[in-house]
Amino acid sequence: MIFRQLFDSVSSTCTYVLSSGKGREAIIIDPVKEHTSDYLQVISELDLKLVIAIDTHTHADHITSLGSLRDSSGCTTVYRVADGEILKFDGISLRAMFTPGHTNESFSFLLEGQPMRAVFTGDVLLIRSTGRTDFQGGDPHQSWNSIVNTLFKLPDDTLVFPAHDYKGWTASSIGEERSHNPRLANKTEAQYVETMRNLILPNPQLMDVAVPANLACGNV
Amino acid sequence: MIFRQLFDSVSSTCTYVLSSGKGREAIIIDPVKEHTSDYLQVISELDLKLVIAIDTHTHADHITSLGSLRDSSGCTTVYRVADGEILKFDGISLRAMFTPGHTNESFSFLLEGQPMRAVFTGDVLLIRSTGRTDFQGGDPHQSWNSIVNTLFKLPDDTLVFPAHDYKGWTASSIGEERSHNPRLANKTEAQYVETMRNLILPNPQLMDVAVPANLACGNV
Repeated sequence: MIFRQLFDSVSSTCTYVLSSGKGREAIIIDPVKEHTSDYLQVISELDLKLVIAIDTHTHADHITSLGSLRDSSGCTTVYRVADGEILKFDGISLRAMFTPGHTNESFSFLLEGQPMRAVFTGDVLLIRSTGRTDFQGGDPHQSWNSIVNTLFKLPDDTLVFPAHDYKGWTASSIGEERSHNPRLANKTEAQYVETMRNLILPNPQLMDVAVPANLACGNV
Repeated sequence: MIFRQLFDSVSSTCTYVLSSGKGREAIIIDPVKEHTSDYLQVISELDLKLVIAIDTHTHADHITSLGSLRDSSGCTTVYRVADGEILKFDGISLRAMFTPGHTNESFSFLLEGQPMRAVFTGDVLLIRSTGRTDFQGGDPHQSWNSIVNTLFKLPDDTLVFPAHDYKGWTASSIGEERSHNPRLANKTEAQYVETMRNLILPNPQLMDVAVPANLACGNV
C-alpha cells in the first residue's frame, strides 16, 4: 500500500495520495491548486498513474487542483458522488459516506479491504475538533449526526485523516475522537449545537474566490 | 502498531511517537519543547506510557523537549548511543545507525521486525534534500558516506521519516531518495560536496540558545 500525506501550510490543508501499488493506479483526495506540480512530481517519482482526483466537498479556503490535475494527467475528476457509492482503483475500494454538516454536500471516504483501515473525513471530523457549520449549507445538527451516527459507527482502530489540521497533528482514529474530541466526547447534541453556534469565526479570506472556482474544478 | 507524526510549524520539525500497542509502551523521537503538552496529551489519550525520549542529534533550530518529558513522565532520555545499539521497548527494536554529516553526532534509527519498515533519519537525509553540513562538526563527505553507504543500503521500501520538512511532504522511502533526491541521484561524491559547500545559509535564529540548551536536555 502506498500512502502519502502532503500539507499546504497556507491553508493548513492535508492532501492524500493512495495506491495499492499493484497496478500503480493512484487517487488523490483534496488537492490544492498551488501544489499541482508537487503532486505530479510525487506521483511520477512513485511510478504511479493518477486515475481519480476527488474533493470531499466544495472548499472555501483554497482552490482545488482537480482541473489542473485532469488537464495534466487525464485523470477522472470526481466531486459529486452518491452515499454508498464505491470508487474502485488499483484493487482498492473507497466507499463514499454522505456526511453533511460542514457543508450540505460533504462526503467522507472509507478505505476498505486494505491492511490500513482509514477514513478520509474532509472537514466534517477534524483531529480533536470539527469543521465549522456556519456557511455553505452547514448545519450543526447534521454535523453531529454525520459524526456520531455515521463516522463513530466505524471500528475504533479506523485511522482518521482530515482535510485540515491547524496544530501539526497528522492522524487520529475513530476511537480517539469518540473518547477525546472535546466537542463530542460526553456531550449531548444540544451541547454540541450550542458550541458550534457560539463559534464566531471570520469567513475564509479566499471564500469569495474559492467557492465559485471550486465549483468549476478550480479552473479560474 | 501505533504511529503518530506531529509537526512544529515554527521550526518545521517532525516528531514521532511509536508503540507496538502490545504493552502500551511508547518512544518519542525529536520532540520540540513548546509542544510538550501536545505530546503528553497524545500519549495519554492513546493510553500509552512514554518510556524513551530521544533526539537524533543536537538540534540547532529548536529546543528539545527531552528534559520536560522526563520531568513529566519519568521516561528515560537518550541522546548518546553507539552505532548498532538497539533500543528495545514494547516488543519493538530500534537500531541506532551512526550517520554523521549534518553534525558529527547524528544518528538514524531503524525500525526492525515490524509490519512497517521505516528509518528515522534526523537531519542527515531529508525528503528530496539533505541536512546542511556547515556547522556543529558537519561535513559533506561524511554526509555523503552516511547516506550513500549506510542509509541507501537499506531496502528500497523502507519508509524515510526525517526530522524536518519545509514543503509539506511527510514521508519518503529509501528507493525514492536513491532515485530522485536531486542532490544525490546520479551524482558523484565530489559533486555533492560542491553542492553543499556552495549553500550559503544563515545560522538558525535559535542556534546560540538551542545548542547549549539541547546539550542539557532542553532544561534552560
